[in-house]
Amino acid sequence: MIPLEEIKQISITSPSKIVMLIIDGLGGLPDAKTGKTELETAHTPNLDEIASKGVCGLIDPISPGITPGSGPGHLALFGYDPIRFTIGRGVLEALGIGFELKGNDVAARGNFCTVDEKGLITDRRAGRITTDKCVELCALLSQIKVQEVQSFILPVKEHRFSFVLRGKGLHDELSDTDPQKTGVAPHPAKHTKSTAKHTADIINDFIKKASDILARQHPANMILLRGFSKLPNIPSMNEIYKLTPAAIAVYPMYKGLAKLVGMKIFSADGDIKEELEILTDCFGEHDFFYIHVKRADSAGEDGDFERKVKVIEQVDSALPQLLNLKPEVIIVTGDHSTPAVLKGHSWHPVPLLLYSQWCRPDDSKEFSESVCVSGGLGRIPATDIMPLAMANALKLTKFGA
Amino acid sequence: MIPLEEIKQISITSPSKIVMLIIDGLGGLPDAKTGKTELETAHTPNLDEIASKGVCGLIDPISPGITPGSGPGHLALFGYDPIRFTIGRGVLEALGIGFELKGNDVAARGNFCTVDEKGLITDRRAGRITTDKCVELCALLSQIKVQEVQSFILPVKEHRFSFVLRGKGLHDELSDTDPQKTGVAPHPAKHTKSTAKHTADIINDFIKKASDILARQHPANMILLRGFSKLPNIPSMNEIYKLTPAAIAVYPMYKGLAKLVGMKIFSADGDIKEELEILTDCFGEHDFFYIHVKRADSAGEDGDFERKVKVIEQVDSALPQLLNLKPEVIIVTGDHSTPAVLKGHSWHPVPLLLYSQWCRPDDSKEFSESVCVSGGLGRIPATDIMPLAMANALKLTKFGA
Repeated sequence: MIPLEEIKQISITSPSKIVMLIIDGLGGLPDAKTGKTELETAHTPNLDEIASKGVCGLIDPISPGITPGSGPGHLALFGYDPIRFTIGRGVLEALGIGFELKGNDVAARGNFCTVDEKGLITDRRAGRITTDKCVELCALLSQIKVQEVQSFILPVKEHRFSFVLRGKGLHDELSDTDPQKTGVAPHPAKHTKSTAKHTADIINDFIKKASDILARQHPANMILLRGFSKLPNIPSMNEIYKLTPAAIAVYPMYKGLAKLVGMKIFSADGDIKEELEILTDCFGEHDFFYIHVKRADSAGEDGDFERKVKVIEQVDSALPQLLNLKPEVIIVTGDHSTPAVLKGHSWHPVPLLLYSQWCRPDDSKEFSESVCVSGGLGRIPATDIMPLAMANALKLTKFGA
Repeated sequence: MIPLEEIKQISITSPSKIVMLIIDGLGGLPDAKTGKTELETAHTPNLDEIASKGVCGLIDPISPGITPGSGPGHLALFGYDPIRFTIGRGVLEALGIGFELKGNDVAARGNFCTVDEKGLITDRRAGRITTDKCVELCALLSQIKVQEVQSFILPVKEHRFSFVLRGKGLHDELSDTDPQKTGVAPHPAKHTKSTAKHTADIINDFIKKASDILARQHPANMILLRGFSKLPNIPSMNEIYKLTPAAIAVYPMYKGLAKLVGMKIFSADGDIKEELEILTDCFGEHDFFYIHVKRADSAGEDGDFERKVKVIEQVDSALPQLLNLKPEVIIVTGDHSTPAVLKGHSWHPVPLLLYSQWCRPDDSKEFSESVCVSGGLGRIPATDIMPLAMANALKLTKFGA
C-alpha cells in the first residue's frame, strides 16, 4: 500500500460524497446442498444492479490466509495498515462497551477466575459466572483505591470485564497477568520497559486488594488481566484524506473504532432502515459515511446460514434510500468473512463492490463471491479501498510530476 | 516487489532481447454510447494476435487508486519503486526541455508572476504570457550574476521556465518561494537543512536581482520557484539488470527519464514508424529497448477519444516491423491511463501484454481492458514488469538455493 504520508500530500477536499457500507462478516462459504454462499443465496436485485454498473473484486483485510479480528479488519477498511497500527486487547475491550478512553489511559481485558487455596488457577473463566454476578463483583472492585490514579472496573459479559487506569505517568509496556493455563498462579504484572515500572506497581497493588475483596466470592475469587494497552497514536481520516467522516453504527465497538480515526458518531439502535434514515438526515453535513451492519456477522457466528441470508436481503431491500441520495461513490464490502458453516470469522477474501461514474465497469452482473473472483478490481488488500474510493470521488491529485 | 539489490544478484547477460513498447496513457474508460474504451474501439489485429500468443494482465503504476505523474509512472515501468525513488519537480522540468542536468545541479520549476506595488502576488501565472515573451524574459534573467555559481534560466512554455544552479556546495533542501496563492508576497527560499543555507542565500540574491530587472515588465514582474531538487541517486539499469538499454522517444522528458536510469538515447521526431526504423537500425547493439509513443496520452488529455483510437491503430499497423525483428520478449503497456472522458491522467490500471516463447499463455484473444481483467498475469504492480521481462528473456537465475 502507498504510505498514508503520501496520500496526505495528494488528497483534496471536494463536495463529492463517499458511502462505505460494511456488512460485517459478509463473505461466506457454500451451503453443502446448494453450492451457494449466503450472499449467493440471498435475493439481492439492488446489489446486483449496482454491481452491473460498477466494478467488483475481492479484498484481503490483512493478508491471504489471515483471519482478521474486528479491530484490524476495520482499520484496513479505513485505509490504515493493520499490521503497523495495532489496537491492544485492552483498548478494544473498552471500546466495545463504549467506554470513553482518554489518550493516556491504560486499559486491559479482565477475567474473573477461580484459584485454589494455594493460589493456583483452576478455572480461567470462573465457571463463566452470570453477567449479573459480574456486574456485582465489578461494583465491589470499583471501591478499591490505588495510589493517585483512577481505576475503572467495567462489566462486559459473563466473566469478562474491562479494566482502565487513568492518571499521570501511566505506561502500557506490561506483560499479562493471565498465564493462559490452569495449575499455575497468576503472574504479577511486569514492566517490559523501565518507564512502566510505576504502572506495574500500581496494578499489582490493585490485584492484591482485589484478591482480598474476592477471597470469599468463589468461584470468582481472583482476577486475570491481559492486553495492557493505550489508544494507538493514529492520524485521523481528516488529517490524511481531508474528509469530514461520519459513522452510523449500532454496536459500541464499531463506534469506538470509528471514533479512533476521527469520525463523528451517529448511534443507531435498529436495523439498516434506521441507519439509512440517519444517513439521509446527516448527508449534507459530511462527505464520507461509514455504515455498519452487524447482524450478518452475528448470524454467521451463530452458524445460522438462513438468518445471514435474510440480513443480506434486508440490506438489499433498504438500498434504494441510499441510492436516492446519489453519493458519487458507493462501496459495499465487509471487514472479514464469517461463513455460517465455520461459525466464526474466517480468512476468506471478502466481496467488494465499488460504484462511481468514473469506475471502469466490468462484466459483473451480480454481487457474489464467485463473480467477484473475476471482477475488474482483482484481488486487492483492503487498505487499497480508501485510495480507490478517494480517486473515484476525484479527491486525489496526481502522485509526482 | 523484490528489492533491486536482489535482482542485481540474480541477473545475467544473454543475447536475448526485450522490447518494451510504452503507449503513453494507454488505459481508458468506455465511451458512453458504445460501452467500449479507446483500446477496445481501435482495430488492432496485430496486438490481438500477440495477445493470443502471449499473456495479459493489468498494472498499477503506483498503487490502486493513485494517479501517476509521468516521472513515477516511468520509473515503475523500469522496475524502480516510484515511492522510494522520487524525481523532484525542478528536475523533471529540466529533463522535459532536454537540459543536461549534472549530478550536483539544483533545479527548480519557475513561474513568471504578477505582483502589485506592495509586492503581493495578484497572478501566479502572469496572465499566461506568450512563450515568445517568456523567451525574451529568460534572456534578460540569464544576465544575472550570482556568487561563484552558474545559473541557467530556460524558457519552457507560456509563464513557465526551468531554473538551474550549477556550482560547488549546492544543496536542494529548500522550501518553495511559490506560496501557491495570491494576495501574499512570494516566500524567500528557506533551507530545511542547515547545509542548504548557502544555496538559499544564493537563490534569494538571484530573486532580488530578478525582481529589479523585471520591475517594469508588468504583468511578468516577478518570479516564483518551486520543487528545488537534484538528480536522484538511482542505480542504472545496467547495474541492476546487466542490460545495455536503449530508449527511442520523441519528447525530451521521456528521453530524460530514460537517461536517468542509464539508457542510451535515440531521438525520433516523427511517429511510431520512424521509431521502429530506429529500432531496426540499433537492434544489434542493445538488448533492451524502451519505445515511447506520446500521442495516445496527448489525445486523451485533449479529450479526443477518436484521435486516441487512431494513434493506437497506427501503433498496431506499424507492429509487423517490430515482430519481424523477433525479439525474445515483447511488452506492451502504458505508464498510466489517460481516459479521453477524464481529459487527464487517471488511477485506472493499465492493460499489459507480455509475449515470449516462455510465457504461460492465457485465453486472451484480444488486447483490451476487459480481457486484461481476467488475463493470466492478474493485476500486478508495474514494478513487477521488469522482473517478468527478464525472466521471460531467461536473464534471471534462481533466487536462493
